[in-house]
Amino acid sequence: MAEKTNTKGLTVKKSEDMPEWYSQVVLKSELADYSAVRGCAVIRPLGYDLWQGIMDYFNARLKLLGIKNAYFPLFIPESFFKREAGHVEGFAPEVAWVEQKSKDEEKLALRPTSETVMYDSYAKWIRSHRDLPLLINQWCNIVRWEVKDVKLFLRSREFLWQEGHCVFATEQECDEHALQMIKEYQRLAEELLAIPITTGLKSKKETFAGAKHTYAIEAFMPDGKALQCGTSHNLGQGFAKAFNITYKGTDEQDHTPWQSSWGFSTRLIGAVILLHGDDKGLVLPPRIAPTKAVIVPITKASDQAATRKVLAASRQLVADLKRNDTEAILDDRDEHSPGFKYNEWELKGIPIRIEVGPKDIATDSCVLVKRNDGTKQAIKLQEAPKTVTALLGQMQQELYDKAKKDVDSRQVTTNDYEALTQLLDERKIVLAHHCGDEECEDHIKADTNGGTTRCRPLGDGKPDKDATCVRCGKPAKYKILFSRNY
Amino acid sequence: MAEKTNTKGLTVKKSEDMPEWYSQVVLKSELADYSAVRGCAVIRPLGYDLWQGIMDYFNARLKLLGIKNAYFPLFIPESFFKREAGHVEGFAPEVAWVEQKSKDEEKLALRPTSETVMYDSYAKWIRSHRDLPLLINQWCNIVRWEVKDVKLFLRSREFLWQEGHCVFATEQECDEHALQMIKEYQRLAEELLAIPITTGLKSKKETFAGAKHTYAIEAFMPDGKALQCGTSHNLGQGFAKAFNITYKGTDEQDHTPWQSSWGFSTRLIGAVILLHGDDKGLVLPPRIAPTKAVIVPITKASDQAATRKVLAASRQLVADLKRNDTEAILDDRDEHSPGFKYNEWELKGIPIRIEVGPKDIATDSCVLVKRNDGTKQAIKLQEAPKTVTALLGQMQQELYDKAKKDVDSRQVTTNDYEALTQLLDERKIVLAHHCGDEECEDHIKADTNGGTTRCRPLGDGKPDKDATCVRCGKPAKYKILFSRNY
Repeated sequence: MAEKTNTKGLTVKKSEDMPEWYSQVVLKSELADYSAVRGCAVIRPLGYDLWQGIMDYFNARLKLLGIKNAYFPLFIPESFFKREAGHVEGFAPEVAWVEQKSKDEEKLALRPTSETVMYDSYAKWIRSHRDLPLLINQWCNIVRWEVKDVKLFLRSREFLWQEGHCVFATEQECDEHALQMIKEYQRLAEELLAIPITTGLKSKKETFAGAKHTYAIEAFMPDGKALQCGTSHNLGQGFAKAFNITYKGTDEQDHTPWQSSWGFSTRLIGAVILLHGDDKGLVLPPRIAPTKAVIVPITKASDQAATRKVLAASRQLVADLKRNDTEAILDDRDEHSPGFKYNEWELKGIPIRIEVGPKDIATDSCVLVKRNDGTKQAIKLQEAPKTVTALLGQMQQELYDKAKKDVDSRQVTTNDYEALTQLLDERKIVLAHHCGDEECEDHIKADTNGGTTRCRPLGDGKPDKDATCVRCGKPAKYKILFSRNY
Repeated sequence: MAEKTNTKGLTVKKSEDMPEWYSQVVLKSELADYSAVRGCAVIRPLGYDLWQGIMDYFNARLKLLGIKNAYFPLFIPESFFKREAGHVEGFAPEVAWVEQKSKDEEKLALRPTSETVMYDSYAKWIRSHRDLPLLINQWCNIVRWEVKDVKLFLRSREFLWQEGHCVFATEQECDEHALQMIKEYQRLAEELLAIPITTGLKSKKETFAGAKHTYAIEAFMPDGKALQCGTSHNLGQGFAKAFNITYKGTDEQDHTPWQSSWGFSTRLIGAVILLHGDDKGLVLPPRIAPTKAVIVPITKASDQAATRKVLAASRQLVADLKRNDTEAILDDRDEHSPGFKYNEWELKGIPIRIEVGPKDIATDSCVLVKRNDGTKQAIKLQEAPKTVTALLGQMQQELYDKAKKDVDSRQVTTNDYEALTQLLDERKIVLAHHCGDEECEDHIKADTNGGTTRCRPLGDGKPDKDATCVRCGKPAKYKILFSRNY
C-alpha cells in the first residue's frame, strides 16, 4: 500500500526544472514529506530542526523586546469573524469549519489567523494605560483550506507560524512597532538564514484583510519569483472598536487603543531551500544548520590497524569540535562507502565535511570540504576546531553575498509597459511607477502572465516628480516592485 | 460586553474549597483564562512560560536519548481511525470532525492523538532494520470534544502536549523503551516540578485504546484525588499490522516491528498549582519558575536622597543576580505600596522576594523572603547572589519533601471492602488486591463514589500468596492503587 520512499540523488538540475528540483531536494534530504491527508504535509526531523532553530532565534529576540508568548484557542466562533467587515470578507473563502454536533453550539472555524479570538480576551485584560503596550506572541498551527495541491513548506492547508498581536495607546507607537517587527524579520532572514530581503509596504490590494497598512519582507528566488516571507500590519483601531477594547487614560477617560499584528511561517524554510540549494541538494547556512560538520572516516577492511587509528582520531575530532560548541557527527556506518556518504551529506546540506583517512592520520591531518563551493583544504587535526568555526562564519557570509549579488544584478527600473513582461520573463525584479489602483494591478497581472506588486521598498518607494503609472498613465502614487511570485 | 478581569487576592482557603481556590489561583495569578470559545482556555504568558520550561527540559532529554522532533498533520482521515479496531472504539465519542466542503473528499477528524496519521508515514519511511529504532516526538495541539466545562489546564476541548511514537525490531526493546520513557516522565515531574510520582501499570480497563499495556505516572493531590500526569504505551504490533509497517531484517525477510507511544500535556501545570499552591496563591518550584526573584525597593516620596540610594542598590542587585544566572526583576512601580507588591508576587508564586529599604542600605544589607514558608533573613547585599542560589535549591527540595511526606502518610493497604469508601473519604491512597476484571472495577467506582484504579506500582504490584480481590473475592491478579481522580 504505502510506497517506500526513494532517497537516491537528484535526477534534475536546479536551472533546468526548479519546481521538480525543489520537490526532490525536500523529499530526498528528508526535510518534509507529502501526507495521505489531502493538502497537508509532514515536517520530518531535519525540517523541524530548522524550524526549532528559527523559533529559538526569534524567542531570544522576543525576550529582549519584552514580548511574551501565550496560547489561544484553535477554534474561532463565527460571530467573532463577522465583527470586522474587511476581515471576514478577506478570509471567508479559505476557512474550514468544525462539523456541528448540536445546533445549540455556535459554528466554529479553525483559525486562519487569530486576531479575533485574541482580541476578545484582550478586551477583558486591558483596563488602564498601565496595561499598555500589551505585547503578545503565539506559536501555533494555522488552517487555510483553499489549498489543494501541497507545495512542501510553501503552500499547504495546515502550516506552523508565529503571530504577534500588540496593543498601543497611540498610533505612532503602534506603527513604529509594526515597522520594528518587520525589521526584526529582515534581521532574522538575513542574519540567520542568509536571505537578502527587500522590506516595504504592500499595495492596498495586497494589504491584510482588516488592516490599515501592511509591511512585508520579500525574498527573490533564482527563478525570478518573489517569496513573501513575513508581514507586519498596522491594524489601526478597527479591531479594537469591533471587540470593545478600551483603556482608561491618565485623564481617567476611556480611549480606543491601536493594534498591530505580525507573522512569519515555515515558508521561511522553503526560501532557504530555494535560494541556497544546488544540483547536489540542500545547502544550509551554517547558523541554522542543526549539525555543522560531519566526519567521514576512510577505512579499509583489509587494514584493521589503520582503521582503528582513523576511527580513534575521528572520535577525538567530534569531541574536540563539540567542546568548541560545534555540533558535529561521526558517520562510521560500515555498510556505505565514503563516496556514498559524501553524496548523502551533500544532499542533506551539512556545511562542512571532514575526511579522515590513513594518509591524513600519518601527518596528524584531515581534509575539510566546504558544502557551498566544494573547496578543500588539508589542515592539522589540532587546528580543526578553530578552522571549522572560521569556515562556518565565512560560508554564512558567502551564501548571503552570493544571493545578494544575484538579486541586485536583477533589479531594474522601467516605465515601459511593453518591456515589463519580457523583463519578468528574464527573471528581473522591476521597480516601476504605479497609480495604486486595485483594478490596474489586476490588469497588469493578466497582461504579464502573473506579474504582481511586491512592495514599495522603504526609502525607495516615493514617486519621481510628475511620474505616471507604468500601465494606465494616471498620476503615480509610488514606485513599487513587480515580479511573479510563489 | 467583555467583563474586565479581577486580579485582587484570593477569597477562599485551599483547605476549604479546593476547586474554587484552584480556579481563583489560575485566574488571578494570570496563568490562564477562560475563553468565549466553549470548552477552550487561553494560556496566558505566565502559564506559557511554565510550558516552555517543561518543553526546554524535555527537549534536552530527548536530544540525549536520540529522539527527534517532527510535525504531522492536524487532520486524520476517517479511514485511518477505522484500521485499528480498539483504537477507533476508544476515541469515537470524543472526536471532532471537519465540515466537508465536497463529498469527494474524505471525512477528516481533528487529532485526538496521532498514532494513525504518523504510522501511515512510518510505513513509507521504514524499509530496513537499519531504519530502526525510529524515535520521533511531536509537540502539538490535541482536540477531544467530550469536554464541555473547562477546568483550566486539567480538562479542555483543546490542549497542548507532546507525543512520542517509536518503532522497534523486537518486543523487548519496545517495552524497555516504553518503561524508560515513563521513568523520564517521573524524572521530569520530580526533578523539575517537585511532584512526587507513583509509576506503574494501568489496569486493562484503563489501558490506552489499541495498546498492549500502559504505564502511567500518577500524582496525588492534597484533596486525595489522583492526577494522571503522563502515560507510555507498549502498542504491541496491532498498529504496525493495520498500517503495513514492515522492515527487512538481517535475514532479508520482511518482519513486523513493535511500537510504543507516550505523552504528557499541559495538565502537568495543573499538578504544580494544585500540589504546591497555598492560601496566598501560586507557589512555583524554583527550577520551573521563569523569574526566580523579585526585588521590591522600599521608598518614601518624602526622602528623595534615600530613594535614589535604594533604587541604585536594587538595580545593582538585579544585575548581580542576572550575572549569577538568576532571572530577577525589579518592581519599581510608583503607583503601588510595597505591601501591595508583596501580595501580588506571592499570588504569582515568585520563589524569592528581596526587600531593599533605607535601613537595609545603611548596613549594605537586604532581606530575603522565601515564598514556600515565608521565612525571612537579612544578609549583606554582596552575599545575595550566592545566598539566593542556595535558597532556590533548598526551596526546590523542601517542596518535594513536603509533598512526598504528605503522600506517603496517606498511603494505606486494605483488604476490607467496607473500609474502602471511608479511606477514600479521608483522602487516603489505598493499595488493595484486585481480580483485574473490568466490570468489578465499575462496581467499585459506583460503590465508593468514584474510586478508580490508578496503577499497579512498579515493584509493588505483585499479589500476596493466595490473596483475593478486595471486592469480589475472586483470586487477585495484582495489588493496585485506588483513589478518586481528576
